[in-house]
Amino acid sequence: MKQVIGKANINIALCKYWGKADPVLVYPTTTSISFTLDKFYTVTTITAQANQDQHTIDINHKPANAGDVEKVSKFLEHFSDGEKVHVSSINHVPIKAGLASSASAYAALAIAANTYFKKHYEPARLAQVTRFGSGSAARSIFSHFVKWEANSDRILPIDAPMMDLGMFVIMIDASEKRIASRQAMEISKTTSWIYKEWVKRANEQAQVMEAAIKKQDFHQIGSIAQDNALSMHMTMMSSKPSIVYFQPETIEIMHHLLTLQATCKDFYFTMDAGPNIKVLVMHQDKEVVRNKLLKFVTPEKLIYSHYGREAHLLEP
Amino acid sequence: MKQVIGKANINIALCKYWGKADPVLVYPTTTSISFTLDKFYTVTTITAQANQDQHTIDINHKPANAGDVEKVSKFLEHFSDGEKVHVSSINHVPIKAGLASSASAYAALAIAANTYFKKHYEPARLAQVTRFGSGSAARSIFSHFVKWEANSDRILPIDAPMMDLGMFVIMIDASEKRIASRQAMEISKTTSWIYKEWVKRANEQAQVMEAAIKKQDFHQIGSIAQDNALSMHMTMMSSKPSIVYFQPETIEIMHHLLTLQATCKDFYFTMDAGPNIKVLVMHQDKEVVRNKLLKFVTPEKLIYSHYGREAHLLEP
Repeated sequence: MKQVIGKANINIALCKYWGKADPVLVYPTTTSISFTLDKFYTVTTITAQANQDQHTIDINHKPANAGDVEKVSKFLEHFSDGEKVHVSSINHVPIKAGLASSASAYAALAIAANTYFKKHYEPARLAQVTRFGSGSAARSIFSHFVKWEANSDRILPIDAPMMDLGMFVIMIDASEKRIASRQAMEISKTTSWIYKEWVKRANEQAQVMEAAIKKQDFHQIGSIAQDNALSMHMTMMSSKPSIVYFQPETIEIMHHLLTLQATCKDFYFTMDAGPNIKVLVMHQDKEVVRNKLLKFVTPEKLIYSHYGREAHLLEP
Repeated sequence: MKQVIGKANINIALCKYWGKADPVLVYPTTTSISFTLDKFYTVTTITAQANQDQHTIDINHKPANAGDVEKVSKFLEHFSDGEKVHVSSINHVPIKAGLASSASAYAALAIAANTYFKKHYEPARLAQVTRFGSGSAARSIFSHFVKWEANSDRILPIDAPMMDLGMFVIMIDASEKRIASRQAMEISKTTSWIYKEWVKRANEQAQVMEAAIKKQDFHQIGSIAQDNALSMHMTMMSSKPSIVYFQPETIEIMHHLLTLQATCKDFYFTMDAGPNIKVLVMHQDKEVVRNKLLKFVTPEKLIYSHYGREAHLLEP
């Protein structure tokens, strides 16, 4: 039976994507820059099916809900000329980690669909298509540092060697249902009094970030990433209504990290549209930093990941 | 024995003072607007003393530390022509409430010193002098709504009747030593990427706030106050280093309040340079709001205060 299996990692943006300049074309207001994490990924299998009335979709061994069926089916129209397939997607992202798995999910689906439906798009074109599934998924098509330019669909790797980076994810439970990123970024864009300034500054930061990546300057990369993430959260919080992704534990850990940073420059932190904190380190420093983090974080809440590779097909 | 007793309340700014336009003249960058709370106050007694080598100062029945002796002695130079007195100051502010008592302390000292040393400054002039002790203390010289205009020493009551307002203070312990306001506002002013925009917007808000006070429009007063306070905290957090006055409990309670506000417009909240949250209500609604707050705050953490009067001398 015809079958293709794709795998893709999540990616963490060092310069964030927060708001669409064009919601239909999915052009972002800011240039985002990311790298992938090998520990968190999705494996998606596309299989031919006999009954071709509609796509059938399983996520984590269970039939997907109607909303996901609709979204995935719509996304598959970018590839399929009418054939309806069976999609089975397994997210290897720890439960309750609050890590958005849509980045790895749509990148894995895209890489599998690209072969299954014989589109054979080049990676740059595939990333452009992937953005219609989930904006951040587009960056997971590539390995290394990936840049998505503001006001465009130019999504390409940065021409620099990958640094030996890693990241601790500190898992913090969300006790409140959080607002979906898609909706939250639109609220920020239309109501935050610092949104315009956020865009201007984030785009300047992305330029400096790209230069820092080319210079392999960990401290500049880290300090821009930390500033950029906090600035994004300020932009969220200054929206109406105020969008607060911080949880009590987020603040507790942030106080510890800020205090540590007064004397230690081994790490920087970033956050996405959720309560978790991600700590960026050079791979060689991971044990030193782990020991520091363990003074205020229990071991089971700490997951380390090395950088990961691009979306790819799995060998049978 | 010659003795004068002064009393002054703390005041809560609805439009905040966060940064000096001129540190020597103590001119603020933003127009602040406050009202006083009757529950939290300082009573200060100035007594003649035989040994006149230096001022002697007791705070809460204990000799003041060297730093406070120096600050208070320096402040008394605005009134005394050389006479050295005994000052005894009692703060009626709950211990660990994290409420800055310097506002009531310097206003009480000023009102007592004004009579003791026979300066007899009019209130407007007395407020100008008081600002050299503590900026926010200047507003505690007056009752009702008080405005301190940006870039100036014009500190005057707003010409409008006092509304029947009250405030719940939700006491949240600070588990970390927080940075002093004086230093924090300077860091914000020199390093926050949104400081300029904060100033511009806060000054626009103060104008709308004054009009809302004259119209007695509780909802506009409240919503501007809440926005202004969160904006100040965003300005703090976007500083380098990031100044975070939020504590874990602050965030927990803020989530509850924001959720409540989706359906209830009986209250708005504000925060100062500390972890506590203050909930602004119309006095008539206090029991309704108290019951809502008690769903996530224990009774002993909730202190209600009605609005209070201006700094004044106590009858013997």
